[in-house]
Amino acid sequence: MFSRPSSPFLTDLYQLTMAFGYWKTGRAQQKSLFHYFFRKNPFQGGFTLTAGLADVLELVTQFHFDTVELDYLSSLKGAKDLPLFEDGFLRHLETLRFSGDLWAMPEGTVCFPFEPMVRVEAPLLQAQLLETPLLNLMNFQSLIATKACRVCLAAQGDPVFEFGLRRAQGPDGGVSASRAAFIGGCAGTSNVAAGFRFGIPVKGTHAHSWVMAFPDEPTAFSAYAEALPQNAVFLVDTYNTLEGVQHACEVGRELRQKGFSLSGIRLDSGDLTWLSQESRKILDAQGFPETRILASNDLDEHLIQSLKLEGAKIDIWGVGTKLVTAYDQPALGGVYKLAGLQQPDGEWQFPIKLSEQAIKISTPGKQQVRRYFEHGEAAGDAIFDEFRPIPAESSMIDPLDPTRSRTFSAQSPFEDLLVPVVKAGSLCYTPPNLAEIQKRVTSQLALFHNGIKRFANPHTYPVGLESQLHHFKTQQILALRRHE
Amino acid sequence: MFSRPSSPFLTDLYQLTMAFGYWKTGRAQQKSLFHYFFRKNPFQGGFTLTAGLADVLELVTQFHFDTVELDYLSSLKGAKDLPLFEDGFLRHLETLRFSGDLWAMPEGTVCFPFEPMVRVEAPLLQAQLLETPLLNLMNFQSLIATKACRVCLAAQGDPVFEFGLRRAQGPDGGVSASRAAFIGGCAGTSNVAAGFRFGIPVKGTHAHSWVMAFPDEPTAFSAYAEALPQNAVFLVDTYNTLEGVQHACEVGRELRQKGFSLSGIRLDSGDLTWLSQESRKILDAQGFPETRILASNDLDEHLIQSLKLEGAKIDIWGVGTKLVTAYDQPALGGVYKLAGLQQPDGEWQFPIKLSEQAIKISTPGKQQVRRYFEHGEAAGDAIFDEFRPIPAESSMIDPLDPTRSRTFSAQSPFEDLLVPVVKAGSLCYTPPNLAEIQKRVTSQLALFHNGIKRFANPHTYPVGLESQLHHFKTQQILALRRHE
Repeated sequence: MFSRPSSPFLTDLYQLTMAFGYWKTGRAQQKSLFHYFFRKNPFQGGFTLTAGLADVLELVTQFHFDTVELDYLSSLKGAKDLPLFEDGFLRHLETLRFSGDLWAMPEGTVCFPFEPMVRVEAPLLQAQLLETPLLNLMNFQSLIATKACRVCLAAQGDPVFEFGLRRAQGPDGGVSASRAAFIGGCAGTSNVAAGFRFGIPVKGTHAHSWVMAFPDEPTAFSAYAEALPQNAVFLVDTYNTLEGVQHACEVGRELRQKGFSLSGIRLDSGDLTWLSQESRKILDAQGFPETRILASNDLDEHLIQSLKLEGAKIDIWGVGTKLVTAYDQPALGGVYKLAGLQQPDGEWQFPIKLSEQAIKISTPGKQQVRRYFEHGEAAGDAIFDEFRPIPAESSMIDPLDPTRSRTFSAQSPFEDLLVPVVKAGSLCYTPPNLAEIQKRVTSQLALFHNGIKRFANPHTYPVGLESQLHHFKTQQILALRRHE
Repeated sequence: MFSRPSSPFLTDLYQLTMAFGYWKTGRAQQKSLFHYFFRKNPFQGGFTLTAGLADVLELVTQFHFDTVELDYLSSLKGAKDLPLFEDGFLRHLETLRFSGDLWAMPEGTVCFPFEPMVRVEAPLLQAQLLETPLLNLMNFQSLIATKACRVCLAAQGDPVFEFGLRRAQGPDGGVSASRAAFIGGCAGTSNVAAGFRFGIPVKGTHAHSWVMAFPDEPTAFSAYAEALPQNAVFLVDTYNTLEGVQHACEVGRELRQKGFSLSGIRLDSGDLTWLSQESRKILDAQGFPETRILASNDLDEHLIQSLKLEGAKIDIWGVGTKLVTAYDQPALGGVYKLAGLQQPDGEWQFPIKLSEQAIKISTPGKQQVRRYFEHGEAAGDAIFDEFRPIPAESSMIDPLDPTRSRTFSAQSPFEDLLVPVVKAGSLCYTPPNLAEIQKRVTSQLALFHNGIKRFANPHTYPVGLESQLHHFKTQQILALRRHE
């Protein structure tokens, strides 16, 4: 529905009224620091995967307002029918391009609450205008990549295919979900547009309607095998599932005579454990031990885990609605917060937003995340302020419980997670392709203890504010509270 | 992310493999009937609103495959590395346009489970190809229009603004949600792209970052009022909410001196009941009785209802994440089922899909919905088959409990809900504009007993299969079951 999605126009009006205000009060060029982060892992899980950066890079490097968009802005009115925006401001927007720096975690990085996934350092007006589209693009794709990863973990290496387009939240609710699902580990999608655009493998054979369009099921399977012998997976539950498996075997023999094989059968209803076990027996007895059983029907990670535990004989999983909508938590609450502002004298100030809820108080500074490793495993992440260089022996403090801390020695190997991706408005980074991002997820997950991947009561991976940043934040809060 | 969203390429691969199969087996031109319907109202509610038809009409009337899309299809392979599709089929797709008929409920119609919202009568290949994009477009927008309607019912006439873009499921997860939310009754949106595209009123003033960008809150409010006196709504909870209200009043006096007014304050955290009551007292005491209080923070219909009950002094509601993602049920399970197929001899056959779950057995026939009225109120809907004309004294039978039935007399006024929208591939309908659709929702809701609008245990509005259709369906099921 929206022809230029990675657009600064995909925004909340208040970003533009603030931009106008910054311009009007002479603050447009004031250098600022914003961070994108979230406060809680989705799905009551122990980790989150980053995704959506490719779209953010497109947004930032192609940042501009079209003439028709500016005409629209000039038509907006406030009280007394006065225009919201002055012409001078719209002329400013007309030539505006993004000139700042972005640092970001590469897509497919395992990350945790409070860690900046993207850091923006840019003139205040520009950085403000990135907020809504950046949140829209990153929140959703990170959510779905994480969900897909959980589903694939439950499938224990079996291929998972994403089949969710028909129930997705709009066209690119489907297309970008297919992208993110592939990042999270899916083997392919049913979504042709996503295959076309991203090169994701596409899969599919036939629906119930195919079977209903023929006089009976054997005739329908036979006609399909005649037309597409190279793509023979039969949906067997239009009338009676186990009879359907028998019919598939009959056609499987026809296929063999022509040098093809019965690739699979698909179960889409009923008791999937029992039906898959019975189907397996029939297939084996009829001489089709290589034929694979694909199952679908409102699956998610919990159901797959339970089917596995019960001994279901399912080889391939089709997951739709619950994956592409992240059904049990359809939004990631990522936020984008101001954390630094350069004053006319060149000095930086680090504002903070208070809240009665400690979890909602923002963190000041120019943040980076240092991940420490012990015995080859990720051992803890320290969020530090680049203006306060991290000492050799660094201790970090839990952002929600200052009595909990942890120290890493100078000898611990580490990796800083934010890398430069845009410098002075230009890309300084080669975005990996989707297959590379998917591989990164696998290698990232291997760095972490299995406890964080558990679905119920996962291990809380240690993330803290580096102690200087913690103390600075605490002082700032106390100063503001005294001022209250 | 997807430049041609209302595209037949926004589909599942199996629609194309089936289309190929129909073409290959000489069934492409066979006339078929499909219906789009759902089986359960979302949100445990008592009704659903239709939305998304405008996009479906665009899809159908602009139906074509691009050359690059066909090139992509020709690259797809099956077993033995054989192409999935023959060239002849791709040449068929190249010139394919939709040539069938669509009947549909106008957008903004109150509808119920099992009722066809769209009926497609078209050559089998074409009707099959509409399935996925139609489901994608209608499922999501109907879901969000229904959610928005519930939120607006809870607000009891107070304006509700949709603020959800940043947490929406992708760019048009936001843009089409804004459209559907307006249909459902919202007064406007923060989403500039939706305002631009659909003419929906856009609203917004400033975020916490504006306040943080200035030395203190009074300076920040004052600077905003200087720049945008015609748009003065202040977010008061960056540091201390009630002090924020005092600061807003100070700036309100400055505004008055310049001939403007303090339009509103916004509360975005904390105990909204208590804070709104205290804020109201301050505003009134300081001489700002006309200043309105806007509240946001993870609101939905249930929270709004509870705040109203507690006597919160909130005039305007900002609703985001929970609305645009339909958080408590992020997908409508709409389906698209084959219900009729014309044979080469011109006779129609009416196939049926069986299931162990009665709710999942499809209904055959060429369906229409007749809504009967008694004393000016909608009294019941009968789903009937146009091949079995409805008798004067009609009885209808509950689709899930055949012991329940209801009879309407020939004297009852009625309305048939499906209207022709596309005839032989061409639009034969003038789609109303969004404001008209929003008005239709209001007039539709007025036709129904309040019981269906209740959130907890709503009244089940009577919907039945007209008795001839019921009996035909039952016979078909019994015949298939005997055949098993």
